[in-house]
Amino acid sequence: MSFDGTADSGFTVPLGTVPAVGGDDDGFRPLELIAIGLAGCTAMDVKSILDKKRLEIESFEVQVHATRAEDHPKVFTHLVIEYIISGKDLSEDAVKRAVQLSEEKYCSAQAMFKKVAPMELKITIQ
Amino acid sequence: MSFDGTADSGFTVPLGTVPAVGGDDDGFRPLELIAIGLAGCTAMDVKSILDKKRLEIESFEVQVHATRAEDHPKVFTHLVIEYIISGKDLSEDAVKRAVQLSEEKYCSAQAMFKKVAPMELKITIQ
Repeated sequence: MSFDGTADSGFTVPLGTVPAVGGDDDGFRPLELIAIGLAGCTAMDVKSILDKKRLEIESFEVQVHATRAEDHPKVFTHLVIEYIISGKDLSEDAVKRAVQLSEEKYCSAQAMFKKVAPMELKITIQ
Repeated sequence: MSFDGTADSGFTVPLGTVPAVGGDDDGFRPLELIAIGLAGCTAMDVKSILDKKRLEIESFEVQVHATRAEDHPKVFTHLVIEYIISGKDLSEDAVKRAVQLSEEKYCSAQAMFKKVAPMELKITIQ
């Protein structure tokens, strides 16, 4: 149950799973990579939009909290995307607008997962 | 545009993007991680099903070929999942059945992406 995942960009990531289903706990669970891809997609959008507005970011974290169905195929049933950000003179309005643009216009992963499960967005400015 | 993606399992993966959009080409593109998650999800299902049938696998690769829309948000418009497998006494029927069980019953990622784009499955026994 151990795999290497290689992308066209040339990077490789280990995939594995828990001993309970025959794994060796030696890599990402596949659904974790999907959640990280979703987080990264919108994180890059928001960063890029705030950069264009010349807003300085000191720290930026995007968390994806995914709830899954109990029965197979255990799809995502609810998604919370939390943007935790700090920066000099960073207004809540500017961050909100960037998050909204990602969700409504730019982020491929959000556009796809909106079709799968309800998606809640939270912003925390530190 | 460089991020670290950390999962509950404890593993971390670098995310990055191309210089054309302000990146340093220092990590996976977010959508690549999603495609790898999809590949890993069904790969583990198929491996697990064939293991239960005590079928010996010598090599096993799952490729995901994703076509994306040209316009934002550039969602997946077509997915091809290709299973390339070799093993002792591995019948095409057994592999087909395992692939089908993953697609119809077990794989969370396939169940979700079927809602997003048409998905074509190919099996190559080597």
